[in-house]
Amino acid sequence: MATQTGPSAADDELPYDVFGRACPSRQVLKDVTSAWGGLALVALSDGSFRFNELRRRVDGVSEKMLSQTLHALERDGLVNRRAQQTNPPRVDYCLTELGREVAERVSQLVDLLEGRMPQVVQAQQEYDAREA
Amino acid sequence: MATQTGPSAADDELPYDVFGRACPSRQVLKDVTSAWGGLALVALSDGSFRFNELRRRVDGVSEKMLSQTLHALERDGLVNRRAQQTNPPRVDYCLTELGREVAERVSQLVDLLEGRMPQVVQAQQEYDAREA
Repeated sequence: MATQTGPSAADDELPYDVFGRACPSRQVLKDVTSAWGGLALVALSDGSFRFNELRRRVDGVSEKMLSQTLHALERDGLVNRRAQQTNPPRVDYCLTELGREVAERVSQLVDLLEGRMPQVVQAQQEYDAREA
Repeated sequence: MATQTGPSAADDELPYDVFGRACPSRQVLKDVTSAWGGLALVALSDGSFRFNELRRRVDGVSEKMLSQTLHALERDGLVNRRAQQTNPPRVDYCLTELGREVAERVSQLVDLLEGRMPQVVQAQQEYDAREA
């Protein structure tokens, strides 16, 4: 991380910079960390899943949102969609090699957050008591 | 990561599980990986900033969205808001110790994505050519 705050200095140094509003990397960061994108990636770390299996795993996601999420991740080259010629036809989703790398980083973030939740909950209670 | 896909099995093992729709850790994951939350955390890795400094760094964020983002991160115990008794009054934002831990994981994800953007852009172009 550079110490300067101006976006132009960072732009000169890095070909891709999520801090630049027009940089395509920002949209990819959004795809990966969207409300459902991160959960879908982490769920797929466990293997290959059918759409409805994934939907059960990512508790609460709508069919439409999961479909949009998987399309965005597929377009970014993070998820493979494999249609099998069975009867009925069967579609499986799995991570690409790049998707596995990204999912690993997201999992590390998720693991940290889950582990630190007691601290977070305490901070939330203190904040709510202070602001009430 | 466990191999079972049912949410109830995971709930039994972990006190907090982002896959459970009612688990408070899911909202924290959303705060941290929201469109602006991740960028604000990474920007604050560089030190202490005033609101408008942060806003220039996180190119494209509106005043309202940055304000909401910082409040959510403050409530989660990740960001400290320090009002100084100067004239004019000055408010600085910085990471808490827990915020630094979380920001580090988000930065690792951002660094990976920025570095892999050539692959992502190629995948996007292939996808668009295929689906067109």
